[in-house]
Amino acid sequence: MGKKKHKRKNKTGLIPGSIVYTGQKESQQLFIEVFDYKADNYIEENLSNIEDTFKFKSTDAITWINVNGLNHVDAIEKLGNHYDIHPLVLEDIVNISQRPKIDEYENYLYVVLKMLYIDTSNNDAVVSEQINFVLGDNYLLSFHESDLDIFDMVKDRIRTSKGRVRDMGADYLLYILMDTIVDHYVNLVDVLGDTIEDFESDILAGNIANDASKTILNLKREVLRARRIVFPSREVINRIEKNENNLIGKNALTFYRDIYDHLVQVCEDIDVYREMVSSLMDMYMSSISNKMNEVMKVLTIMASIFIPLTFIAGVYGMNFEYMPELKYHNAYYIVLGIMAVILIGMILYFKRKKWL
Amino acid sequence: MGKKKHKRKNKTGLIPGSIVYTGQKESQQLFIEVFDYKADNYIEENLSNIEDTFKFKSTDAITWINVNGLNHVDAIEKLGNHYDIHPLVLEDIVNISQRPKIDEYENYLYVVLKMLYIDTSNNDAVVSEQINFVLGDNYLLSFHESDLDIFDMVKDRIRTSKGRVRDMGADYLLYILMDTIVDHYVNLVDVLGDTIEDFESDILAGNIANDASKTILNLKREVLRARRIVFPSREVINRIEKNENNLIGKNALTFYRDIYDHLVQVCEDIDVYREMVSSLMDMYMSSISNKMNEVMKVLTIMASIFIPLTFIAGVYGMNFEYMPELKYHNAYYIVLGIMAVILIGMILYFKRKKWL
Amino acid sequence: MGKKKHKRKNKTGLIPGSIVYTGQKESQQLFIEVFDYKADNYIEENLSNIEDTFKFKSTDAITWINVNGLNHVDAIEKLGNHYDIHPLVLEDIVNISQRPKIDEYENYLYVVLKMLYIDTSNNDAVVSEQINFVLGDNYLLSFHESDLDIFDMVKDRIRTSKGRVRDMGADYLLYILMDTIVDHYVNLVDVLGDTIEDFESDILAGNIANDASKTILNLKREVLRARRIVFPSREVINRIEKNENNLIGKNALTFYRDIYDHLVQVCEDIDVYREMVSSLMDMYMSSISNKMNEVMKVLTIMASIFIPLTFIAGVYGMNFEYMPELKYHNAYYIVLGIMAVILIGMILYFKRKKWL
Amino acid sequence: MGKKKHKRKNKTGLIPGSIVYTGQKESQQLFIEVFDYKADNYIEENLSNIEDTFKFKSTDAITWINVNGLNHVDAIEKLGNHYDIHPLVLEDIVNISQRPKIDEYENYLYVVLKMLYIDTSNNDAVVSEQINFVLGDNYLLSFHESDLDIFDMVKDRIRTSKGRVRDMGADYLLYILMDTIVDHYVNLVDVLGDTIEDFESDILAGNIANDASKTILNLKREVLRARRIVFPSREVINRIEKNENNLIGKNALTFYRDIYDHLVQVCEDIDVYREMVSSLMDMYMSSISNKMNEVMKVLTIMASIFIPLTFIAGVYGMNFEYMPELKYHNAYYIVLGIMAVILIGMILYFKRKKWL
Amino acid sequence: MGKKKHKRKNKTGLIPGSIVYTGQKESQQLFIEVFDYKADNYIEENLSNIEDTFKFKSTDAITWINVNGLNHVDAIEKLGNHYDIHPLVLEDIVNISQRPKIDEYENYLYVVLKMLYIDTSNNDAVVSEQINFVLGDNYLLSFHESDLDIFDMVKDRIRTSKGRVRDMGADYLLYILMDTIVDHYVNLVDVLGDTIEDFESDILAGNIANDASKTILNLKREVLRARRIVFPSREVINRIEKNENNLIGKNALTFYRDIYDHLVQVCEDIDVYREMVSSLMDMYMSSISNKMNEVMKVLTIMASIFIPLTFIAGVYGMNFEYMPELKYHNAYYIVLGIMAVILIGMILYFKRKKWL
Repeated sequence: MGKKKHKRKNKTGLIPGSIVYTGQKESQQLFIEVFDYKADNYIEENLSNIEDTFKFKSTDAITWINVNGLNHVDAIEKLGNHYDIHPLVLEDIVNISQRPKIDEYENYLYVVLKMLYIDTSNNDAVVSEQINFVLGDNYLLSFHESDLDIFDMVKDRIRTSKGRVRDMGADYLLYILMDTIVDHYVNLVDVLGDTIEDFESDILAGNIANDASKTILNLKREVLRARRIVFPSREVINRIEKNENNLIGKNALTFYRDIYDHLVQVCEDIDVYREMVSSLMDMYMSSISNKMNEVMKVLTIMASIFIPLTFIAGVYGMNFEYMPELKYHNAYYIVLGIMAVILIGMILYFKRKKWL
Repeated sequence: MGKKKHKRKNKTGLIPGSIVYTGQKESQQLFIEVFDYKADNYIEENLSNIEDTFKFKSTDAITWINVNGLNHVDAIEKLGNHYDIHPLVLEDIVNISQRPKIDEYENYLYVVLKMLYIDTSNNDAVVSEQINFVLGDNYLLSFHESDLDIFDMVKDRIRTSKGRVRDMGADYLLYILMDTIVDHYVNLVDVLGDTIEDFESDILAGNIANDASKTILNLKREVLRARRIVFPSREVINRIEKNENNLIGKNALTFYRDIYDHLVQVCEDIDVYREMVSSLMDMYMSSISNKMNEVMKVLTIMASIFIPLTFIAGVYGMNFEYMPELKYHNAYYIVLGIMAVILIGMILYFKRKKWL
Repeated sequence: MGKKKHKRKNKTGLIPGSIVYTGQKESQQLFIEVFDYKADNYIEENLSNIEDTFKFKSTDAITWINVNGLNHVDAIEKLGNHYDIHPLVLEDIVNISQRPKIDEYENYLYVVLKMLYIDTSNNDAVVSEQINFVLGDNYLLSFHESDLDIFDMVKDRIRTSKGRVRDMGADYLLYILMDTIVDHYVNLVDVLGDTIEDFESDILAGNIANDASKTILNLKREVLRARRIVFPSREVINRIEKNENNLIGKNALTFYRDIYDHLVQVCEDIDVYREMVSSLMDMYMSSISNKMNEVMKVLTIMASIFIPLTFIAGVYGMNFEYMPELKYHNAYYIVLGIMAVILIGMILYFKRKKWL
Repeated sequence: MGKKKHKRKNKTGLIPGSIVYTGQKESQQLFIEVFDYKADNYIEENLSNIEDTFKFKSTDAITWINVNGLNHVDAIEKLGNHYDIHPLVLEDIVNISQRPKIDEYENYLYVVLKMLYIDTSNNDAVVSEQINFVLGDNYLLSFHESDLDIFDMVKDRIRTSKGRVRDMGADYLLYILMDTIVDHYVNLVDVLGDTIEDFESDILAGNIANDASKTILNLKREVLRARRIVFPSREVINRIEKNENNLIGKNALTFYRDIYDHLVQVCEDIDVYREMVSSLMDMYMSSISNKMNEVMKVLTIMASIFIPLTFIAGVYGMNFEYMPELKYHNAYYIVLGIMAVILIGMILYFKRKKWL
Repeated sequence: MGKKKHKRKNKTGLIPGSIVYTGQKESQQLFIEVFDYKADNYIEENLSNIEDTFKFKSTDAITWINVNGLNHVDAIEKLGNHYDIHPLVLEDIVNISQRPKIDEYENYLYVVLKMLYIDTSNNDAVVSEQINFVLGDNYLLSFHESDLDIFDMVKDRIRTSKGRVRDMGADYLLYILMDTIVDHYVNLVDVLGDTIEDFESDILAGNIANDASKTILNLKREVLRARRIVFPSREVINRIEKNENNLIGKNALTFYRDIYDHLVQVCEDIDVYREMVSSLMDMYMSSISNKMNEVMKVLTIMASIFIPLTFIAGVYGMNFEYMPELKYHNAYYIVLGIMAVILIGMILYFKRKKWL
């Protein structure tokens, strides 16, 4: 497989507030989508120049600026300054190794979530992509590394005014975007769970591959990875729900509570799967021991039966001049008979021990 | 056994508040029972048309509307709108993968519990069925997938005015329905506990089947499943008991505290059984090792006794021309004697080592 | 041993507040002791008719009514009604599977504790018996299944006015009864601890019986059983101590704090013993592995020495016509010498490996 | 080693407040030291009669009465009554199985700590001795079983007015005594840690004695014992520091916080050592398995090489009349050659498998 | 490797507040750097005489006094007295076995952190060096054992007025110094993580060295060491952030929250690596068992095939006079054929068992 470890970029020694992109997608094109909507109309624009978005700030409509391409730190800094965002927030937006968190500032909320998906091109590993939200009074800024199609459905709803999105504020927009992300968590954990249950069925059916311990270790790691993302996300939503805040209206709070319930369930599922993976290791260890037992029994049975018989044959293969039995006419058959008796006795003994 | 995994329905991408049934019982008939009762009289009606229940809302009696058939989302939506229930609640009612929870709204409580039973037709697996309650000022709506006979006793009590149910409010009705559910938890955990204790006795008596680790894994999984349902249920009751609320009267609170005590006990029992199952795995592993030890001892004894004897026989089976012992008249008997001495010595050695 | 599992009585479906005895001692005689005492005098009566106790309620002395025989639900119900006890409390009193708990009502406290003792007639199992207390302003009701001699000392103190019991209120009486129960916990845990330490010494001295894992499992279970009783008892006392309450006077609180300290210590001891039992299992598993190692070494040494020698003997037992060595006069002795060298070499090799 | 278990004295059934010595040192002489000091002068007296200490109560100096000999319950009771100490405190003082705790009374604090030391005469076991403190407004009473030299340095400081002890109150005196005790904890844990690290180095270097599991179990027990004393001590200091209290002045609080920091560190060290001991057991188990593997390899190699060769020799040792190979002149050498080829082939095979 | 254990200096029995250096670097030169800066100018001086720093106290600029050489206790005491620092703080500054902590005094904060680095000259062990900070209103004192180059970048920023350091107070200076330390934690944990993941890949690829358990134990210990430093550091920052305090301004608090986020992430990473190391041990144990299984299979196959064949050869090697088969012309070939049949049968049997 080789080691294709993603070497983290070293930020040590930089001035705090230095806005440095820490990801790998250096060549991503900057791509900016703007939705500026009210209940009765909406504007959609696709831009590649950050200054073109500035005009939307002064509208009384809800403005959603969706920035793809965290490598364009200059543009992000300009946008941030225009919206008066703290430099530390800008630093965090482009530092893709953030954990899910929420920071409350006077005029806006900064929320980091992680999109989780299974990378089929890389051993079905669980991969995460950071999504940053800045929620202001009537605007929402979102930042991520690459074009994400997971928000397409939300865009459609704004365009067609499906659901209540056009009638509500930026807080509700943030909610449906987060809800979309959490729905993906649910799917991912379902897929993980199915994999674990299939594997468990295999083990229960006795089909234990030699590299089962690798599979178990891999499953454990995937579950741990998902856990690292989902558990702090729960805390993020919990803080939104608990600390009442002018930016999140009372109407929207009910919806955030709904996401919270989903996340609690996902967290519980993850912990159940985690415990199941641990049990699988126990199961696997006991199956190895059982196999060893079986191997040892075969050896013991074969050796215990034939070693004594071979000894008897050895005795009558000795070349002493005076061995009276050798002369008896039926001695050979008698000895063969004795051997047969020993053989049958041994087999019965092992049968009684339930080794056969 | 095959994989008959219940593939969850994918809800990703739906508009929040979309009311979509996520269960398997698509063809369930809609069946609605209505009890409208006061201390001195009661009305019982079985309906299949949701509009027929609307008239009961305006009565000053306590109204219990028991809806069987979560697949009939339209009817549920109509009823919900009639009672002014939040769309997210309606969404949760028909989404059968909810965990036990309580959501407090201004005029009503939404409570999800899970009925637990052992499905004898499916390997004695622990199966759960979601039961939704909406408790209003003088009404209680309950929703579940199929006809449940567990509420029959409650219905009888309303009919015959047994106990105090007819004298108290909808909060007490909710209590006795929950109490019935929790009583089933108690039974289920007792059955699980008996199974575990029987199995433990078997292992202690040395009757260890080859597939014991499968049984242990299965028991563990059943205990975990029950735990996932019962523990959040405890939290639900705790929140009812703690957060005083207009909908639950002071009189009824004492009764909810009683359910809470039961649930605490069930939770403790579950954790004890969980620990016992873990101990069983240890026990089982040590029994495998002990068996292996026994097998190895048999092999070692047989090999250690007969291999040296066979060697001696081999020596006197050599064909050298000049082997003076071969000529001695009693050499054969002397060698046999030496062999007997070695044999007895070996046996005594193993006896002293307590291997025999 | 057979399965003499105590099948729990099924209470499912009963009306809440149904007073049903759930124990086994159906034929227990009803036996009521009454102590009605003040600092300067006391009355003691042994009754079998519950109505005879009613007269004591109106006295201004402290009244202790000690009821033996939970199977007499009618009498308990009458007494409960006379003292105006909530039906749920009466239900709990006769339901012997309660866990230790405290319920606070307006005019009285309901406390459940469990007496713990070792049943020598049943494999030294740890057995518990439920003791119910109802503490009112100047009365204490206690209920249990059978005559308990553990309270004899307390009765003596009332009779002889030893200590301060006659000078203080019902809260102090409850304290000394609880203190007696907790003293028994201390003893029981000491006995368990001694058993575990003896067993540990045995294992450390190498005396490991084949059924050691059973003993360990049994010890673990006993510790768990004690834990299930003692830990919630600690919470009960803690709640008495914390939530100041009119029924427990300030003077008595100091004493309850003392019980609490004892219980904390018992809890810690239990957790230490629990950890020691877990270590014993590790210890036992390592001893099994060590034994197996020893067995394997014996086998390996015997086989490694004699199999090559037998091979050499086999070579010179071949019947080829032209085998020049066979004719040499000293060939036999040379071969024997070579065999001796191999033998000694092997022994030295195993000595160096520390296998001998 | 024999069982020299210290049988606890049974206090069950005694009247609460009974002052009964529960230790072993029944014949300890009563020995009382009194220090009565102010900034500018001090009195030191060694007494054996408790009444002689009464006169110091009325002085306006700080009085420290250090009582050696808990078996003299009468003297302790007299002193207690003179200082108006609650009987439960007196009971606890002479009951040496207390855990570290603090009880706050109106006019005094009762503190129990445990001195920890390693008993070199008893297998280097960790032994504890109870030290009781009663801190009043301007007095400190201390009680312990035997003469402790650990307080000598403190006495010297009072005598020589070294440090600030003479300038501060009884709260500071209690602090330096506790500080001395905690310093001994630090030492003890360092010694335990060194032992564990030495043992770990041994195991890492491959020097694993057969009784390593005993050593590990012993180390684990010592760590657990220290833990049982040190952890509740931390809580004691924490409560002193947190709950502001008239008896502990603001100046002294800074010093108690310092002890608290030390104790937190000791607790952490203990938990690290505990985890290291657990790892040692894993390490040891894996080393046993590795050894077994090595034993098995030797056996397998010897048997796999020589058993086939012996079979070939056996074939040509058969006595059939017509076995043409036997007549060929070079057959013997050819067979020997074939055997050599098999031998070398086997060795190469095991080399490739890395078993040799 | 030998035991080069760092013997802790024993401080037992010293007067509290005794300022005693507990480290090893006794011969370190005293080296003092002073930065006295405002937005528009700064002074930098390198001194070796502590009194030379006193003049900076009265300036209205921000003063940073960086003291290298904890062995110079006199100088530190003088500086401490000049700034009116509590003796216990001075004691802690030179006692290098402090854990990370924060102590709040009226006019200053005392903070202990630990620098973590990997000592490549000592088996890549994780080594820590204590760094003490005393933060006053407009000064910051820092103390450590030896010259640390990790602060060079900070010094440069003061000199060149890069970033906002010159515009803000001493609280911000403390922040950037701490941030530098925490950045080193991040690097260290990344290096540890890479080592663990490389090792895991090796094990997954089957390259398991014999001393893998040593490596695992070592990794575990390193992770534990890092954990002991990083976790209390998180609490330190948390307390700075939570307890609002005059010394840390509102502006700086946002920055401390940023460090806190970093530390939370480092803590999570450490716990993930800790769990991964535990899994590695399981993995390793299962790989040992698998290897043993393989060894046993080879032995069992060889022995099971050739022992019966050798027995047959033995039978026809017996010297009975009357053994009719010996005379048959083709008997030899028939027996060889039977042997071949047995051989093939055995091979097929083991193939079916998947042992071959």
